[in-house]
Amino acid sequence: MAKKSEPYKSALHEQDGIEPPKTFSSNSAKFIKAKRKKQPSVEDLVKGITAGNITDLSRAITLVESTNQTHTQKAHDIITDCLPYANQSVRIGITGVPGVGKSTFIEAFGSYLTSIGRKVAVLAVDPSSSLSKGSILGDKTRMEDLVKDKNAFIRPSPSGDSLGGVARKTRETIILCEAAGFDTIIIETVGVGQSETAVHSMVDFFLLLKLAGAGDELQGIKRGIIEMADAIVINKADGDNLKAAKSAKVEFNRALHLYPEKDSGWSPKVSLCSALKQEGISDVWDVIQEYLKITSSNRYFEHNRNNQNKFWLLQTIEERLKSDFYKSEKIKKELPTQIKLVEEGKTTPFAAAEYLLKISS
Amino acid sequence: MAKKSEPYKSALHEQDGIEPPKTFSSNSAKFIKAKRKKQPSVEDLVKGITAGNITDLSRAITLVESTNQTHTQKAHDIITDCLPYANQSVRIGITGVPGVGKSTFIEAFGSYLTSIGRKVAVLAVDPSSSLSKGSILGDKTRMEDLVKDKNAFIRPSPSGDSLGGVARKTRETIILCEAAGFDTIIIETVGVGQSETAVHSMVDFFLLLKLAGAGDELQGIKRGIIEMADAIVINKADGDNLKAAKSAKVEFNRALHLYPEKDSGWSPKVSLCSALKQEGISDVWDVIQEYLKITSSNRYFEHNRNNQNKFWLLQTIEERLKSDFYKSEKIKKELPTQIKLVEEGKTTPFAAAEYLLKISS
Repeated sequence: MAKKSEPYKSALHEQDGIEPPKTFSSNSAKFIKAKRKKQPSVEDLVKGITAGNITDLSRAITLVESTNQTHTQKAHDIITDCLPYANQSVRIGITGVPGVGKSTFIEAFGSYLTSIGRKVAVLAVDPSSSLSKGSILGDKTRMEDLVKDKNAFIRPSPSGDSLGGVARKTRETIILCEAAGFDTIIIETVGVGQSETAVHSMVDFFLLLKLAGAGDELQGIKRGIIEMADAIVINKADGDNLKAAKSAKVEFNRALHLYPEKDSGWSPKVSLCSALKQEGISDVWDVIQEYLKITSSNRYFEHNRNNQNKFWLLQTIEERLKSDFYKSEKIKKELPTQIKLVEEGKTTPFAAAEYLLKISS
Repeated sequence: MAKKSEPYKSALHEQDGIEPPKTFSSNSAKFIKAKRKKQPSVEDLVKGITAGNITDLSRAITLVESTNQTHTQKAHDIITDCLPYANQSVRIGITGVPGVGKSTFIEAFGSYLTSIGRKVAVLAVDPSSSLSKGSILGDKTRMEDLVKDKNAFIRPSPSGDSLGGVARKTRETIILCEAAGFDTIIIETVGVGQSETAVHSMVDFFLLLKLAGAGDELQGIKRGIIEMADAIVINKADGDNLKAAKSAKVEFNRALHLYPEKDSGWSPKVSLCSALKQEGISDVWDVIQEYLKITSSNRYFEHNRNNQNKFWLLQTIEERLKSDFYKSEKIKKELPTQIKLVEEGKTTPFAAAEYLLKISS
C-alpha cells in the first residue's frame, strides 16, 4: 500500500476535500435515490390496475408498447395476471373515411355512455400513425369533453412498423383496460391497409360511419368493409343533408340485403345521426344492446371471441415464422441471388424456394 | 452343402422340370423386360418435349402431378432443362361462373387461334376438382373440335388438397407446354375459393366471361374479380339476349371507370360475343394483341412476369414454413392444449404463440 503522502506544496497542489455538512442526512439521500430508481413491480401495477388506478394503467400500457425486452417480459406478466379480470366488456370497432366525423361521433357517443354510467376506454389502430405522427386520437383536444371525463380513458394508436405489431399492442391494451374496470372499449380505425380487418377481428360489434352521397360505396364493397359492418351510421344527418341522408339509408338497407345472412344471426342496421347536434346517438347504443342480447342468447358472442383468440394465436405464429425466416443472415444473403436466377430463367420459383428452405434449416 | 438327393419315388414325387424350349430366346426375354421397365430418362423426355412430342409432354406432366418423391425430382430436372425453351408465349386466364359458357367459348376461341396458325394449350386450375372429380375440362367431349385439333393440347385440372398445390402443378405445366412449342396458353378457372387470384398471378392477360343480367356483379366487385380483369366478354350475346348484352356492356364500361388506372397502362375492354354462333371471337384476340403491343412497349409484360415469379417464390416459402410448423409432432400435440388455455382465459393468444414457437425450434 502506498504511504499516505505528506502535504506537498507544488503549484498543482489541491486542498483536501471537506466532509459533507452534517445537515445532509445520508439516510435521506438513500431514501431519495431508492425512490427515484424504483419502478413499480408487476404486483404493484396489477394491484393498481384492478383497483382502477389510471396512472398504473397508463404505465402498464407504456410497457406493452415498449420494444425493450425487459419491458416486454414485464408487460407479459402483467397481462397474464390481469386476464382473470378482463373480458367483462363490450368491444366496439368504429371505422370511416377521414372527414366522416369519427372524433365528433366518439366524443358524443362516449359522453352519452358515461352519462348512463358506463366506463369508456377509447383506443385506436392506425398503422400509418408512426409516419403521420399519430393522426388518430393524437390530438386529444378534438375530444374536449371526453378527455376531461373521469369515466373515460383515451389512448392514441401505438406506433409500430407493421399492422400486426400495432394490432397486437392494441389487443393487449384492451385486456388492461378491461381489468381496470372499463366496460365499454371503443376502437377507432381509419381505412389504411388492412386495419379494418384487424380491428374487426378484435371487436364484438363493428360500426361503419358514413356520409350521405360521399360516393365511396364501391370502395366499401370492394374492400369488404360493408360486409363486416354490424351497423352503418350515416353521420351529419342534419340541416340540408337530412334528405340525402334519408335516401342513403334506404340505399344502404337495400345493399345490405344482397349479402348472405351473418353467422351471428344479426341483420345489420342502418341509422342516421348528427354527432354535432347530438341526435341519434342513443339509438346507436340501443342497436348495440339489441345485438348483445341476440348474440349472448345464441352464444355467438362467446363463440366469436374464441374464434378471434384462435385467429390471433395462428396469426402471430405465422407472422413470426415469416419474419424469423427473412431475418436470418443466410436468407438475407441468398434470397437476392435466387430471385436473380429466377428472373434470368435459370431456375423456377419453386426450385429456388426449396433451395432457400433447405439452407435455412 | 446338402448332398443332391437320389430320385425318390414317394406319392409326393414330382417330375423334374423340363428345359425351356429352344424357340424361346433368352435374348428376346431380356429385351422385352428391359423395354417394359424402361422409363424414359430426363434427357429423352426433354428431347421429346422440345421436339413437340405430345406423348412425352403428357408423360412429363404426369410426373409433375405425381406425389411420388422420385417423380417429383425427375419433374424438377425436366423443368429446369425446359426453362430455356419456355416463356415464348402469351398466357391467358379465363374465368366465369358455371353456366356462362366457358367450355363453348374456349372451344370457339381455341379453334379460331389454331386456324390462324397458333398452337394452343388449355389448362385448368380447379381446387374443387379433386372433390367433384374434375368438373373443369374433365369431360373433354365438351370441346369436341379442339380435342381433335393437332395444334391444341387439353389437360384437365390437376388434383390436390390445396389451391397452392394445384396452382403450382399448373404453373410448372405451363413451362412444359411452352417448351413443347405452344405459344398460347389458356388457363381456365371457375370461381372457387381464391382460384381466380391464383390464376391471375400466373397469366399475362385475364379475361372475365359474363352473361347479361346474371346479377352477380356485386359478387365480382366484392371478390375483386372485376378489378383483375383486362377484358370483360359478355357471352351469349345473340337472339333475344342481344339487347340486354348491349346495355350490360355500357354498365360494365361505366363500372370499370370507377377503378384506378392499372399499372399496365391498359384500360380494360368490354366486348360482346356469341361462342355458340362463333361471333365476336376474333375481336377478343384483337384486344389481346393490342394489350400485348402496349405492355411490351412499356415493358409491363416483362415486369409483370418477374413480379409473378417473385410472388410464387415467396408464396411457396411461406406456405412451406406454415405446413412444416403445423405438421411437426410437438406442435400437433401442444397446439390444442394452448388453444384450450387461451379459451379458458388462462393465457393470451400472443403468449401461447411464443410458447409454441419456442418448443418448435
